[in-house]
Amino acid sequence: MFQARARAEVLKEVVNVVSTLVDEAKFTMNSDGLTLRAVDPAHIAMVDLTLGKDAFDEFKADESEIGIDIDKLSQFLKLSRGDNIVDMKHDEDKRRLKIVVGDITRHMSLIDTTGMSDPKVPNLDLPASVTVRSEDLMQGIKASETISDHIALVASPEAFEMSCEGDMDQVHWKKAKKDLPALKAQGSVRSLFPLEYFSNMLKSVSSGSEVTMHLGSDYPVRMEFKIADGKGEVRYLLAPRIESND
Amino acid sequence: MFQARARAEVLKEVVNVVSTLVDEAKFTMNSDGLTLRAVDPAHIAMVDLTLGKDAFDEFKADESEIGIDIDKLSQFLKLSRGDNIVDMKHDEDKRRLKIVVGDITRHMSLIDTTGMSDPKVPNLDLPASVTVRSEDLMQGIKASETISDHIALVASPEAFEMSCEGDMDQVHWKKAKKDLPALKAQGSVRSLFPLEYFSNMLKSVSSGSEVTMHLGSDYPVRMEFKIADGKGEVRYLLAPRIESND
Amino acid sequence: MFQARARAEVLKEVVNVVSTLVDEAKFTMNSDGLTLRAVDPAHIAMVDLTLGKDAFDEFKADESEIGIDIDKLSQFLKLSRGDNIVDMKHDEDKRRLKIVVGDITRHMSLIDTTGMSDPKVPNLDLPASVTVRSEDLMQGIKASETISDHIALVASPEAFEMSCEGDMDQVHWKKAKKDLPALKAQGSVRSLFPLEYFSNMLKSVSSGSEVTMHLGSDYPVRMEFKIADGKGEVRYLLAPRIESND
Repeated sequence: MFQARARAEVLKEVVNVVSTLVDEAKFTMNSDGLTLRAVDPAHIAMVDLTLGKDAFDEFKADESEIGIDIDKLSQFLKLSRGDNIVDMKHDEDKRRLKIVVGDITRHMSLIDTTGMSDPKVPNLDLPASVTVRSEDLMQGIKASETISDHIALVASPEAFEMSCEGDMDQVHWKKAKKDLPALKAQGSVRSLFPLEYFSNMLKSVSSGSEVTMHLGSDYPVRMEFKIADGKGEVRYLLAPRIESND
Repeated sequence: MFQARARAEVLKEVVNVVSTLVDEAKFTMNSDGLTLRAVDPAHIAMVDLTLGKDAFDEFKADESEIGIDIDKLSQFLKLSRGDNIVDMKHDEDKRRLKIVVGDITRHMSLIDTTGMSDPKVPNLDLPASVTVRSEDLMQGIKASETISDHIALVASPEAFEMSCEGDMDQVHWKKAKKDLPALKAQGSVRSLFPLEYFSNMLKSVSSGSEVTMHLGSDYPVRMEFKIADGKGEVRYLLAPRIESND
Repeated sequence: MFQARARAEVLKEVVNVVSTLVDEAKFTMNSDGLTLRAVDPAHIAMVDLTLGKDAFDEFKADESEIGIDIDKLSQFLKLSRGDNIVDMKHDEDKRRLKIVVGDITRHMSLIDTTGMSDPKVPNLDLPASVTVRSEDLMQGIKASETISDHIALVASPEAFEMSCEGDMDQVHWKKAKKDLPALKAQGSVRSLFPLEYFSNMLKSVSSGSEVTMHLGSDYPVRMEFKIADGKGEVRYLLAPRIESND
């Protein structure tokens, strides 16, 4: 059983976060809220999303799971303004989700979840962490996009840096510790990431938010941020590209 | 003889309404104003437009007709703001229309009207009618566009509904009588229409307007709305798609 | 040696003016400021730009020249707002330009200037001149774009006119002397120009500016306007299309 009511903007945040990596996703519900874990088709990135029941105006659920075509849900939410109220109800017999916003009702067929994996979140020991405003991250990404397909994230006790090297040109975005919301690093760490993934993941972060990144050297980055006015949480993992020593 | 002056926004409304169905159109003038009737190339839809002479700042015309390339007129009007004044004069000798807005004069060659048909507006007995705000109609259309190529319009004594069925999903947009500007129906009627035509026709309606639709079962829909601050009137007819009983 | 600081909007004006004609350009510096002369690949148009050192917040330069990929510089400036401060420094050893805006540093490789020409500005005796607001010019251009690939500029003692003749239609944009900032002509002059060049050149003029055009009959047009709040100057030359008498 799953029946819930929420502001459209909360659901839009969820859709933005998930659609970055997958077209279809399995939502797992229980009486406390819902969770979602998914790995992108290329197995380079993972999302681990939790949305507590207090992120909803109403929320009732047994332990259950539903498979949603994220694109269809996104289409439907585009019909609504952010402050519209969306009602959802799982029709187990017909394997459909009934969604209502204003005068519009959509009966949306669900996806069979039996074949969908349950990815495990790896336990990573990442020695450095830095908190950056989403606007600042986007500026560093935009500067990098004209240079290369990869971006290096570098944290040291003094500063955090995004840098990008092309055949001819280089771009560096750098902020000192005092200009960052938070920075913790013993030594210096550096990892290289595929820029398109990194960019798409961060585009799903609402403007005005802060993102905390946990980093190591040649290790995945774990990006954490809040959604739904702090009542939901997202963790993205992105695999590094190991730089060869040739 | 035809010589007239009007605000650009009035002419833009006319162009929007007509360009939905045809690229070229014959305008028929007399001392009371102008009329236009045209059928789209696939013979699925018809427009019947009347613009009284008081929709113009100045209007002088004998009984005459001119054939206009709607696309050219639209291009020219895009050079103007809505409150600009447009002067038009038919040059019969050179078969051109002289149009002036601000510093710009265009001599526009006219189209020979001898081959252009004079469609008759069919006399239809449509038992139900409903008046809907254009914004509401557009919302129902947008919800339908992701589902199917056809939209069903359903009127009953209690409510008006637009609905759409795809292979997997269904969408319904529904408003009760009390939430509609007007609704008259003895029993329930239902007809199915090609969504793209219905959508394009309603996109030409100015926002904030109301559209009155006359409906039957498996019958054409007649859509009526005002243009030019009530000094002009549009009637669209759209043929139904007859649903087979297979 | 070249080291300078300027508001991003000043550099964006320069980039807009130059990118209209060339992808790469040689900037020539001395202690008074910088100059740039370039001819487009088809040898139809020329730009002659001067930017005095007082257009910069700081400016230090020896006699030197640097070859810049205009597209790269444009990309970089898009990362900035108009009031951002941009720092530039020529690294002669590494043949790079270091550009800094806010937290972003780009090391931009320079282009070898040895093969780049030094075009001479031809000495033209153009008998008529007219000053027109950039908005008015753009309106005349937009009206012409739907008609033909060429535009005629016509100046007489009484008026300035842009006109365009297609196979079927004609467009004229005309302003009388009293409605123009300035107009000087003994007799009537007329030249025909490729519309796309003329349009692209004038798109680089900031809105609210005035452009002075010097004209003859079947002669190039010289267009002059200010940039950088009057501290820089642009001269464009555009070759006419000679109309045959067939």
